[in-house]
Formats: sequence, C-alpha cells, structure tokens
Amino acid sequence: MTRRPPTGAAVLQPTVTKAIVEAALDELAEQGYARLSMEAVARRAGVGKSALYRRWRSKREMTISAIAEFSMERVVVPDTGSLRGDLRASLDSLLAWLTHPRFSRIMPDLVTEVARDPELAEVVEAMVGTPKRERGVVMLQRAIKRGELPPDTDLELALDLIAAPVYWRLVVRSVEPGAGYLDRLTDMILRALNGTAAGRSDHPPLAL
Amino acid sequence: MTRRPPTGAAVLQPTVTKAIVEAALDELAEQGYARLSMEAVARRAGVGKSALYRRWRSKREMTISAIAEFSMERVVVPDTGSLRGDLRASLDSLLAWLTHPRFSRIMPDLVTEVARDPELAEVVEAMVGTPKRERGVVMLQRAIKRGELPPDTDLELALDLIAAPVYWRLVVRSVEPGAGYLDRLTDMILRALNGTAAGRSDHPPLAL
Repeated sequence: MTRRPPTGAAVLQPTVTKAIVEAALDELAEQGYARLSMEAVARRAGVGKSALYRRWRSKREMTISAIAEFSMERVVVPDTGSLRGDLRASLDSLLAWLTHPRFSRIMPDLVTEVARDPELAEVVEAMVGTPKRERGVVMLQRAIKRGELPPDTDLELALDLIAAPVYWRLVVRSVEPGAGYLDRLTDMILRALNGTAAGRSDHPPLAL
Repeated sequence: MTRRPPTGAAVLQPTVTKAIVEAALDELAEQGYARLSMEAVARRAGVGKSALYRRWRSKREMTISAIAEFSMERVVVPDTGSLRGDLRASLDSLLAWLTHPRFSRIMPDLVTEVARDPELAEVVEAMVGTPKRERGVVMLQRAIKRGELPPDTDLELALDLIAAPVYWRLVVRSVEPGAGYLDRLTDMILRALNGTAAGRSDHPPLAL
C-alpha cells in the first residue's frame, strides 16, 4: 500500500519551491531585503502567500534559504588533483558567484543587513558561510594529504585569504579584475600558504 | 591692508564644517545614506541648511567629503623602517578604521549604495580608495628600495591582498579576529609578497 501524507498536511512540490526561490531572488535583487514583501514574492511566483508560509516561517527564513540554495550550487571546489588547480577553479567559481547579475545586487545589501542584525548574521554564517568554508577545508586537506601544504596550515586564515581579495575587488571596490588577475592571485595565495616549505627547499614547493 | 572677503561671500568657519561633518557621520551611521536628509544633519549640527549648501552642492558631495575626512585621518602607514613593521601597523590602522563604532555601521551601507550607483562608486574610489591606495604604494615602494620586495612586485594585487582579509573577516563575515590573527596574517602576506625571493635563498627573505 502506498503511503499518503496525513490529511491536511501540505505536499511541498519541488517545482513550486523552485519558482518561489527564483521569485525571492529576483525581488531581493530589485528591492533589497528591507523592502522585500512576501506578497510580492508570491505574486511573482504565481502562487498564494500560504504556499510561502507552508515552506518558511518568515521572510528571513525564506531569504536565507533562497540565498543558500543559489550559493551552494555555485560555490564548487572540483578535485583537479593539484592545489593549484583546485585553487584556480575555486577562484573561478567565486568570481562567477559574485558577478552573477542577480547575486551581485543581492550580496552587498545582505552584508548591510547582516551588519545591522546579529541574528541574521548568525543564520547567514550557518547556512552559507560555514558550508562554503567546509568545502574549502576539504580542498586544503586534500593538499595536505598530497604533501602540497604543511600539516599545520592555518585553515581559517587560509580560507580568508582565498575568498577575500576577489570579494574586495569586485564588490567593495567595484573594479573589474583585468586579464590574468586570477592567475596572479593564485600564485600569490600559493606562496602565502606554502611560504615555509618554499624557504626550506630549492625546488618549487608545489607539484605543478 | 588686510584683505576682506568680498561682500556677500560666505566665510566657511572650520569649526562649523567640523560640526557638520560629525553630524553627517552620525546620521549616516544611524539612518544610512538613502534615508539621510540634509535637514536632519543641519538640525543635529545646530546650523541652518544653508550652512551645508554653502559647503557642498548635494547630499552626495557632503557624504563623500565626510567619509573621506574620517577615513584619511585613520588610515595611516607609519614609516617603521621595515616592511613587517609597516605592514603590521597598516593592518592595525585598517582594523581600527573598520571597527570604529561609527564607521562599522557606515561602511556596509556605503558598499550597498556604491553597488547601485556607478557614479557614487567613482567618487568614493577617487576620494577614499585612491588616496588610501597611494599611501599603500608608498609603503611598498619603501620596501622595494630597502630590497625587501622584488622591484617587479605587483603593487595593485599586493594592496588587494593586504586590505581584503581584514575587511572580509570583520565586515562581510562579522567574525572577530582572535588573538594573534593580525600577526599570522602579517606573516602570510609577507610570504605572499616575497615568495619568489624566499624560494631562492636559505635565509629568511626579510630583514626582521
């Protein structure tokens, strides 16, 4: 016998969820978090407001969930077999994420809201920051296993150093990275992470 | 004979300017740029609105001028005699600037506005970004002259790498840097900037 949901329980159709998430992201990009209304999102997605509240208890929950879904799809760290390869691919994905036409309008606004609202800051860190960093840690640990990084690498600081310059240049300074920027940044980060080993050996520290 | 300003010309008293700048910064921190009104700034400074318009043509000009004045006083690069010393002092001053109770509320909002308004972005870059970076370039060129950095150092990328991690951690992630963070960051940046030299020598690459 097939199981049926108990009478009255909402069946959450993935296609509806997807439509709402898309609508929420568009509204966030156009209106910003402060002006975002559940009504406008429902209208844009072509559903009733109740469809939103069946999924999330509040505008805050919906927003974070939409941003987390959008971000986690894009922030990828492929296993290329070398730290240089992995690092370059991460920077590419970071750049694509931050310069996505929709997200480049959402992110600065979100940072402003987070600065005003410590509770929101915690949720964003838990739903976006932490999973993103966990993927970065996996990348660095692969490199440690391969002997490309010292075992005592400061992972926390390394991740700051990887993500920060691209964000700084693109979002804070609003300056396009020119040709070769990501290559030169990759070299610099590799040196930063691997400096101790580089000082000890005459060979290039990385298996390139 | 003493020169008198021509009849009808405004005498811009520095103490009044200072009071207006302070009021503008307080209003920016509390209300944000979008909600800032010239009237509220004038009221807070205890002057008439005309005192504001004698100094700046618009809310935008006043805002940028206030932020530039506040920032340039704080972003200092002392000449300590070594790159490590200069770098550590710059990071200290950057941290103090970004965590200043008033400025930590102004900066994320400003980044949002800049993302929405390319013209504002240009003025902020010209009035704050460029002078700040010029001081950084002076620091790096001193290090090149002392032989602490290779003459072909990528100054543009180096400055991104110096400023970005502190901003990323404090403003974007809202995570306090723990004890020793700036020391470890200083080490990492030094390795990043000096990696080539470090690979060529058995001696520590920097005169510490």
